[in-house]
Amino acid sequence: MPKPFTVQDFSARMARAAESAARAGLSGLVVTPGPDLIYLTGYRPVAVTERLTALVLAQGRQPALIVPKLERPDAEGSAGASALKITDWADGTDPYAAASRLLTPDGRYGISDSAWAMHLLGLQEALPDSRYQPLTRALPMLRAVKDDDELERLAAAGAAADEAFHDILRVAFAGRRENEVAADLARLLMEKGHSQVDFTVVASGPNGANPHHEAADRTIRTGDTVVLDFGGLKDGYGSDTTRTVHVGPDVPDEVRTVHEVVRRAQQQAFEAVQPGITCQEVDRVARAVITEAGYGEYFIHRTGHGIGLTTHEPPYMVEGEEQLLVPGMCFSIEPGVYLPGRFGVRIEDIVTVTENAGRRFNNTPHDLAIVS
Amino acid sequence: MPKPFTVQDFSARMARAAESAARAGLSGLVVTPGPDLIYLTGYRPVAVTERLTALVLAQGRQPALIVPKLERPDAEGSAGASALKITDWADGTDPYAAASRLLTPDGRYGISDSAWAMHLLGLQEALPDSRYQPLTRALPMLRAVKDDDELERLAAAGAAADEAFHDILRVAFAGRRENEVAADLARLLMEKGHSQVDFTVVASGPNGANPHHEAADRTIRTGDTVVLDFGGLKDGYGSDTTRTVHVGPDVPDEVRTVHEVVRRAQQQAFEAVQPGITCQEVDRVARAVITEAGYGEYFIHRTGHGIGLTTHEPPYMVEGEEQLLVPGMCFSIEPGVYLPGRFGVRIEDIVTVTENAGRRFNNTPHDLAIVS
Repeated sequence: MPKPFTVQDFSARMARAAESAARAGLSGLVVTPGPDLIYLTGYRPVAVTERLTALVLAQGRQPALIVPKLERPDAEGSAGASALKITDWADGTDPYAAASRLLTPDGRYGISDSAWAMHLLGLQEALPDSRYQPLTRALPMLRAVKDDDELERLAAAGAAADEAFHDILRVAFAGRRENEVAADLARLLMEKGHSQVDFTVVASGPNGANPHHEAADRTIRTGDTVVLDFGGLKDGYGSDTTRTVHVGPDVPDEVRTVHEVVRRAQQQAFEAVQPGITCQEVDRVARAVITEAGYGEYFIHRTGHGIGLTTHEPPYMVEGEEQLLVPGMCFSIEPGVYLPGRFGVRIEDIVTVTENAGRRFNNTPHDLAIVS
Repeated sequence: MPKPFTVQDFSARMARAAESAARAGLSGLVVTPGPDLIYLTGYRPVAVTERLTALVLAQGRQPALIVPKLERPDAEGSAGASALKITDWADGTDPYAAASRLLTPDGRYGISDSAWAMHLLGLQEALPDSRYQPLTRALPMLRAVKDDDELERLAAAGAAADEAFHDILRVAFAGRRENEVAADLARLLMEKGHSQVDFTVVASGPNGANPHHEAADRTIRTGDTVVLDFGGLKDGYGSDTTRTVHVGPDVPDEVRTVHEVVRRAQQQAFEAVQPGITCQEVDRVARAVITEAGYGEYFIHRTGHGIGLTTHEPPYMVEGEEQLLVPGMCFSIEPGVYLPGRFGVRIEDIVTVTENAGRRFNNTPHDLAIVS
């Protein structure tokens, strides 16, 4: 177990967030339950519900957390609680009136991307002159640059996922349903130290051509190409790895060709990583390889997404994203080719930006592994 | 397994929702992933993410679903898909520009409570003259009145939770940690047919005085009063039950007294249920019993919440809620008393409104069960 984050860690993060908000021309931040709140305070309510919980940060003011009255003991028990001024509201009273007392009436705030629309509308109504921007747009880099303790956790999560992949190569594929192999993957992730499994994609044959297929009743057969995309949380930080395997012994030429194109796209995008290039450049490098090989129209998603307390967060490796890479950023590089009705190939590693290059948190081979 | 809902079911629900919206003076509804979308279309994306998915309903127009391009195959595979006009947007393009083409520029829309603030802000920016209300406020009754197929599922979920409670009384409490008993409860819920466990509160001794305590490392001891609150989904519909037990053999007088007060509060609130009374009346009846017994200040939450595809949804049994009860509504009745630093007592059943009374979906005894 890594050393837990302390109230000093949370205080420093909140101070930095408030300062970044001020620099971005904002009055402050409104942070609701989810990864931003965990990052800033260590507080994770038992459930995200219709009852408003919100952290308000503004430079030069003590961080203020408003919670439902019945959740107050939980909030007071969180690791960052002693840095917070905690207030509460009771069932049957107006939470937005209470929360709006923590805001400047005509303030401009960054608000958590995943804050409930109901809560945002409540605040907009309580303070008609207040204005909001999603945090991802207002402060996209709030959690994007990881500190050493976070990098250690992400590296450990990646290593655990690698161990799970290593072991999954030994299970039977042919004759079993995707769901069964997915259950094996979930069990392996837990055995390797994950506390939570978020997804275990096992997409065989034509199902592999649907990049968001998860796992279904389809029985895997000899000759199938199978996309395995799996991840979850270990010590609070995410893993997310994809490898494509083939149920051997024989591999059709086109599978081999497409796999090699995707492998090169992933490798070249990885080699492009260094501080100072844009996120979209990572996407462009991967896309160029695939396009030049004639498969561009079958690479139908962005090249990657940030990872940390969640498995999808800024920075996004996508056309139009001009954010520069900075040491400590962590994200996926996961080009893919999807041939409708036939098969798909995707290869994904989590990568962090070092002082002068990229470093992989996933280190299993990129060859097309043959399973049986 | 109950019979799956069909495209006819979903079409009828969507038509009724659009009609209700028009009657409420709205141009239509904007529904994002979650229970509303499942209810209206059967579509449950693999994950709720930063990528916009939205159903737009407006009276007299075909329901329109916009999805991320890479999730289109999943959406097309959902049970209600053939009733939908599906469009998509690709990574790197503006989803709000695309979605706003489905909306009237100066329209007034109900939007899912839990739609991401990021998406609402995107729509507000794309269509500055559009206006939004949370669905719970705009159409609180959208999913509140259950049809027979839904009632059957909720009754089955309640019966399964009852079986789990029956079995948990036989496990050892004294000397084991709350977490261990919680794991037993989770296992039992799954054994009794739940597909998903949402919460297993085991709050012993002073932890019981925190109504949102879940389960921790505390070792349960002889003489502890223990609140057990557990539920999840069975065939897509929720269970949510609370019983308070005592680790015997001896029960302190005040535990017995408080338990009896809570039992009477729950019973009288249940007996008050009939079509035509207000939701707040259910809360008032329970609260009056507890207040008259001198424990009013220790009943620190509302009396109940609706249940269906989620375990918290309208109607809410809370002061100020003037919605009238209607046959087919389903909700919890769960008064409690929480004595800080000492113990808590809560008793909760799911109840549905019949033509002339209430009917419980939980039917295990309300006596203070003694465990060992």
